[in-house]
Amino acid sequence: MDHFADRLTHAFRARGNSVCVGLDPRWELLPEEIRGRHRDMTLAGMAAAFEEFCLRVLEVVAPLVAVVKAQSAFFEACGPAGMTALQNVLRHARQQKLLTILDSKRNDIASTAEAYADAALGGTVLGASRLPVWDADALTVNPYLGRDAVEPFLKSARRDGRGVFVLVRTSNAGSGQFQDLVCDGRPLYLHVANAVGEWARENLGTCGLGDVGAVVGATHPGELAAVRQMLADVYFLIPGYGAQGGTAADIAAGFRADGLGAVVNSSRGIVAAFEPDDPAWEAAVEAATRATIADLARTTPMNQLTRPAERS
Amino acid sequence: MDHFADRLTHAFRARGNSVCVGLDPRWELLPEEIRGRHRDMTLAGMAAAFEEFCLRVLEVVAPLVAVVKAQSAFFEACGPAGMTALQNVLRHARQQKLLTILDSKRNDIASTAEAYADAALGGTVLGASRLPVWDADALTVNPYLGRDAVEPFLKSARRDGRGVFVLVRTSNAGSGQFQDLVCDGRPLYLHVANAVGEWARENLGTCGLGDVGAVVGATHPGELAAVRQMLADVYFLIPGYGAQGGTAADIAAGFRADGLGAVVNSSRGIVAAFEPDDPAWEAAVEAATRATIADLARTTPMNQLTRPAERS
Repeated sequence: MDHFADRLTHAFRARGNSVCVGLDPRWELLPEEIRGRHRDMTLAGMAAAFEEFCLRVLEVVAPLVAVVKAQSAFFEACGPAGMTALQNVLRHARQQKLLTILDSKRNDIASTAEAYADAALGGTVLGASRLPVWDADALTVNPYLGRDAVEPFLKSARRDGRGVFVLVRTSNAGSGQFQDLVCDGRPLYLHVANAVGEWARENLGTCGLGDVGAVVGATHPGELAAVRQMLADVYFLIPGYGAQGGTAADIAAGFRADGLGAVVNSSRGIVAAFEPDDPAWEAAVEAATRATIADLARTTPMNQLTRPAERS
Repeated sequence: MDHFADRLTHAFRARGNSVCVGLDPRWELLPEEIRGRHRDMTLAGMAAAFEEFCLRVLEVVAPLVAVVKAQSAFFEACGPAGMTALQNVLRHARQQKLLTILDSKRNDIASTAEAYADAALGGTVLGASRLPVWDADALTVNPYLGRDAVEPFLKSARRDGRGVFVLVRTSNAGSGQFQDLVCDGRPLYLHVANAVGEWARENLGTCGLGDVGAVVGATHPGELAAVRQMLADVYFLIPGYGAQGGTAADIAAGFRADGLGAVVNSSRGIVAAFEPDDPAWEAAVEAATRATIADLARTTPMNQLTRPAERS
């Protein structure tokens, strides 16, 4: 496969926007129509409902956006059946030519990190085979354990053009407790950002961006600008737009001047943009996706490159 | 259920040791006997082999130790079938009256963290029901996102006497990259340790220890001593003994003077203590478990309280 950043850049340019739809299925926010068919109140039923919902969302958003992000936690909450649903959702997204980010915020040490990395990206090694598990284009990684723990993720990603997004400044209100601690004159999150830059520059794509990105929340615009100032050659995955309170103006500083460099995620703002009893919920998801693209186009250059592709 | 720390303390006293057996199944280290029955080279076959291996290890170690720790990464590497194996292994451990730690190093924000926490501990909420998923007695949590992200884990744990172990100083060689950064006069890992102490003191058991513990590697004995000096009332989960290089002398500083306070994990030193072609591999696992207990008894007071229980 081509370099991850080149694949992202190409897909964003083709779509004319850099919106990522977050697949965060929550039982209480699903359409009643779907819940009604899975009312046995088992984890397997919940998983089946999540899968049906996400597949139908994918049908709606695939013509409009380039990337989706699956939130592993909600699938794991359904146990093994949820993991099967996650596999099916990711496979379906790939079939629709969407790029996939697995948001699982994993990390561990040595061969344990390797097991997570290979499962998420390049495939689990069994004898001479490499067997795909989640088979995502990228995953999110927690940096607390340091470079040697991140290394297996880079290795698995670089085997065939996949990517890694490292948590730098998360979107929650209390993210500063440790991330803002000032060490040697700068906050911890900028130390992590600096490391992300070093890792990214080991392998830049032809678009000039690396295959290691940074997760920086839209809810902290000052920090977002500080990280962009430090890292010209890194893709940001920006959560926190929409339901969490981040605005298009807040995230403008996350983009580079050429319009590249940001993957703007919206989850609830799109996949919960309807009342559960609305039979036209798919139209509401489509409208919310288009509204998100239009909103971002007001302040962020990537989203002004072309009008959104409208394959119908 | 009783308070998590009281359950740990009671179980350690009953067994006369504080060894935790790490269930880290790796295909290439499994007994050939088991691999031979699952040679179809699929993820489902790998998962079935992992399950069979872990269940047989549980039979061997359940009479000897109080706690086991399942490494989520190796089960996840087998996809959904691996998660079914993980459920079966954890269920079997509970049936054997073992306390279970799910080593999944999870974290995320808000309701996403809640989904991870409920799946690991108190059960996934579906309507008015709470459905058990991994149903572990405790899990490991990454602190990078801060208190509000750890909060859902505390809440789920405290619903019914379960526990949380927060990464403080991990056992990998490069753990100092961020964990040793000095902020306001002390390293980051001591800031995290200080927070763990605050969280633990919100809910102390009658044994005087809290339901929030700290993961501190045996491979960094100086740091282990520093964290113990700061935290008298916190259980430590200590990885890194044995295969990673930590010795019984190294971990002595992790115990309190009364012999409590540490859960000493050994994974490969026990579950890979044989050549794959050894038909008597279970005897080797038993001998390695007894040798670990005896080794710890030389330097750590908990392991001298009584001789290991020997239900045969």
